[in-house]
Amino acid sequence: MHIREMTTEECTQALSSARLGRLACARENQPYVVPIYFAARKGWLYSFSMMGQKIEWMRANPLVCLEVDDAKGPDDWRSVVVYGRYDELSERTEVVQAHELLQTHVMWWEPGVARVQHGNVQASPKPVYYRISVDGVTGRVAIPAGLSNR
Amino acid sequence: MHIREMTTEECTQALSSARLGRLACARENQPYVVPIYFAARKGWLYSFSMMGQKIEWMRANPLVCLEVDDAKGPDDWRSVVVYGRYDELSERTEVVQAHELLQTHVMWWEPGVARVQHGNVQASPKPVYYRISVDGVTGRVAIPAGLSNR
Repeated sequence: MHIREMTTEECTQALSSARLGRLACARENQPYVVPIYFAARKGWLYSFSMMGQKIEWMRANPLVCLEVDDAKGPDDWRSVVVYGRYDELSERTEVVQAHELLQTHVMWWEPGVARVQHGNVQASPKPVYYRISVDGVTGRVAIPAGLSNR
Repeated sequence: MHIREMTTEECTQALSSARLGRLACARENQPYVVPIYFAARKGWLYSFSMMGQKIEWMRANPLVCLEVDDAKGPDDWRSVVVYGRYDELSERTEVVQAHELLQTHVMWWEPGVARVQHGNVQASPKPVYYRISVDGVTGRVAIPAGLSNR
């Protein structure tokens, strides 16, 4: 197995095809990491959430990090790390566009949404739509022995 | 689908059976998250790494968060989040014990180890062995419709 750094183009492609990532935020230098579903478009990663610790912390400190990986085996994997900033969508047009993008790309896996889908929609709080800027991205890919020209 | 909080015992069990997690650390409120392999034993999560950003940041700020999830589908998953502290192992006995534990539990997936395994061992720097205290743990499990007695 060899390891090589991914190009920015490869990282962008990996983010575009990914759906599930792990999003880290921090408060007073205490990190917090949770899985999220997202959709990438034009240098931004779109997602949504019900109100909770993640949203509260990102409102207080917009610096975040998102990690995406795809491990087929111990010697055949890739991992991409994004540094970015939290940007909450408040304009109705932005929210509608994000909702449409996410509907076509993302599984409705998020706990909050389960409540919205199966519970009392009237009583449920509205989800928060947000996007993460891709300010910096790095990636590494493992190449199994015998495939070193990948 | 219903969502419920996991008990501490269920969280501990999930950590014991997990191998792959995502570890978040932070520096000056900038989070950083990467995949790691680990092994749980007696309230600690053991792992190792070659020197790099993750180790540098955890040495400077030991507050970390580790997330483990297991998603079989959009309505059948669980996710566990640990708050803890980085503790670097320096005593030879501790390092040997951690190495033995990790050898029996963990796939040698980590990029740094690939270099050790396939490269010039003499020239490679030694891996850093560390453990994370499990200071707090929370978990959520999704229960598919029709299995609400789980």
